[in-house]
Amino acid sequence: MKDKLGATNALYPLVTAIVGSTVEGKPNFATVAHVGIASLKSITVGMGKDHHTNRGIREHRTFSVNLPTEAQVEVTDYLGMASGAKVDKSGIFTVSYGELGTAPLIDECPVSMELRVIEHVELPTHDLFVGEVVATYADTAVLTNGVVDLAKLKPLLFDMGSRRYWALGDPVAKCWSVGKDYGPLS
Amino acid sequence: MKDKLGATNALYPLVTAIVGSTVEGKPNFATVAHVGIASLKSITVGMGKDHHTNRGIREHRTFSVNLPTEAQVEVTDYLGMASGAKVDKSGIFTVSYGELGTAPLIDECPVSMELRVIEHVELPTHDLFVGEVVATYADTAVLTNGVVDLAKLKPLLFDMGSRRYWALGDPVAKCWSVGKDYGPLS
Repeated sequence: MKDKLGATNALYPLVTAIVGSTVEGKPNFATVAHVGIASLKSITVGMGKDHHTNRGIREHRTFSVNLPTEAQVEVTDYLGMASGAKVDKSGIFTVSYGELGTAPLIDECPVSMELRVIEHVELPTHDLFVGEVVATYADTAVLTNGVVDLAKLKPLLFDMGSRRYWALGDPVAKCWSVGKDYGPLS
Repeated sequence: MKDKLGATNALYPLVTAIVGSTVEGKPNFATVAHVGIASLKSITVGMGKDHHTNRGIREHRTFSVNLPTEAQVEVTDYLGMASGAKVDKSGIFTVSYGELGTAPLIDECPVSMELRVIEHVELPTHDLFVGEVVATYADTAVLTNGVVDLAKLKPLLFDMGSRRYWALGDPVAKCWSVGKDYGPLS
């Protein structure tokens, strides 16, 4: 028997990302853990409308998603507290650009993606941007056979309930495999 | 210097959910890890349009999001492989209903949410449903001070790169805290 908690969002943990855009000609970044995947090639980011970074996404219809590591927890947390409207965050990282030209890629993060906005849903308080992944970049150090290896990446997971970042644990089982004898498939 | 990987979605891990809806009067379920948070009270699920579960969501504009645990990895994986169009999944779980009446809540999952669709974005191959959390239910066993405790829940995290489910690790640091001395806030 479960307890009723009210209308609490319990979809945690989610992977912590640093979202980048170009605002007034300069790169700006915000830490966002309210992210998700919409389809194989597209990503959602839900960001309060007053975020400075949103301005750049609305203007250029491009953004970057960069994945920080456990070792980068301090700067990641800082970027979730300091607003680009008050603090110039353009010098915190070394920035590169890929195909889109306005999606600032963080060199210090081992994984970066550049995205083009394909849908912009205006919720009452939030912009929900759906971005198509145009290109993905990763440090060789976090790859195994050309694929991002989460055990090497050590991503930061976010949980609102505990107000903490969490580490990833160990593999549990293979997908599309461990359950194949649980019941009939057709 | 990073390697360019092409347009690979690298936003992993994401928490694995079992999404429920009412299809032809019966509860149906699908395992979905392409989920996310849009705003404090809303959740996204991105589901290939041919999923049986989508039919119920489109018809009733309600769905449930249930969080399975490490111990439930086999049934979770099974529900991601067996289509409700071919297999009747209505008897796999004990099902309850909350306020909405058509969002089947899985008693065996320690955390369940019922959601009302507030946006439906039709992507070329996927339905992106944005649901507002109407009510949340949790087993007392996974709560600490009335809040879902991830260390007790032991959620299943999904990674496409390794095609594996992963466990959650340990807490790393406090949010809105560990980075407060990293730089100026105003």
